[in-house]
Amino acid sequence: MEAEGLHIRPVAEGEDDAIWGMLEPVFRAGDTYAIDPQIGRADALAYWTSEHAYIADASGPVGTFYIRRNQRGGGSHVCNCGYITARGAEGKGIARAMLSFSLVEAKRLGFEAMQYNFVLDTNTRAIDTWARAGFTQIGRIPKAFKLPDGTYTDALILHRFL
Amino acid sequence: MEAEGLHIRPVAEGEDDAIWGMLEPVFRAGDTYAIDPQIGRADALAYWTSEHAYIADASGPVGTFYIRRNQRGGGSHVCNCGYITARGAEGKGIARAMLSFSLVEAKRLGFEAMQYNFVLDTNTRAIDTWARAGFTQIGRIPKAFKLPDGTYTDALILHRFL
Repeated sequence: MEAEGLHIRPVAEGEDDAIWGMLEPVFRAGDTYAIDPQIGRADALAYWTSEHAYIADASGPVGTFYIRRNQRGGGSHVCNCGYITARGAEGKGIARAMLSFSLVEAKRLGFEAMQYNFVLDTNTRAIDTWARAGFTQIGRIPKAFKLPDGTYTDALILHRFL
Repeated sequence: MEAEGLHIRPVAEGEDDAIWGMLEPVFRAGDTYAIDPQIGRADALAYWTSEHAYIADASGPVGTFYIRRNQRGGGSHVCNCGYITARGAEGKGIARAMLSFSLVEAKRLGFEAMQYNFVLDTNTRAIDTWARAGFTQIGRIPKAFKLPDGTYTDALILHRFL
């Protein structure tokens, strides 16, 4: 996808540093992804790139996302995605561009629906973006996430057919 | 737990054959668990026993279940469990006994809630059992599972605080 100098493409060989550079601050903060904040580089990269991983490039990496089966066997027609915008690149429509690309790409890969399992309900900006993209809230997990300050927040489950 | 000759206990060394003997027919059938029906023995055992795994024994293994974190990091206070009753041992209250044990054991392990992510809504007997045990339906994934005959069924997400 080319739009105002943004190029979204599959991750290439040798881009581990670029990806880890975007994942590390988000995972270490521990306030959005249900990932061990102390996760190591190799485990984080394995988690992110296990099936299909992409980079959004604008004269340098500004975002990354993955697409993978949300379940196996009889559930493998539904995909799950995760998106991270690089620090300092927020507010420029990069997340929206990655989302648009992922919807087309997931369908091309043969998936029939997309599901996010764990969207913190404090993440209102992302939730708005997904709602506008046709996602439906199909569930709410009460007190699903313990924030670094010890308070709990609910997590939403969002779904869209492709 | 001892009840009418049923002993529920953690899996011991050397019980891989017993566990695999219970998992294999269920996974191969491909009509309840979102697991690749062709999964190999080693992968299946790794999946089942990754954190805490148990056997229900009645002069031989009649059931097995696992307890593990449903998410990592800020989500690791919620556990997920899976239960399988051995073929030929259904209808004797073994699933109910494993459920009761797992609720106590999960709390002892420090979990604050239990969540099932993917309960086929055709599995009415298990859903009834869980509802009676205090689980709430917190979500429904439309057309989440493709049965071996090509038809789709929804999956429910069930939750209970411990």
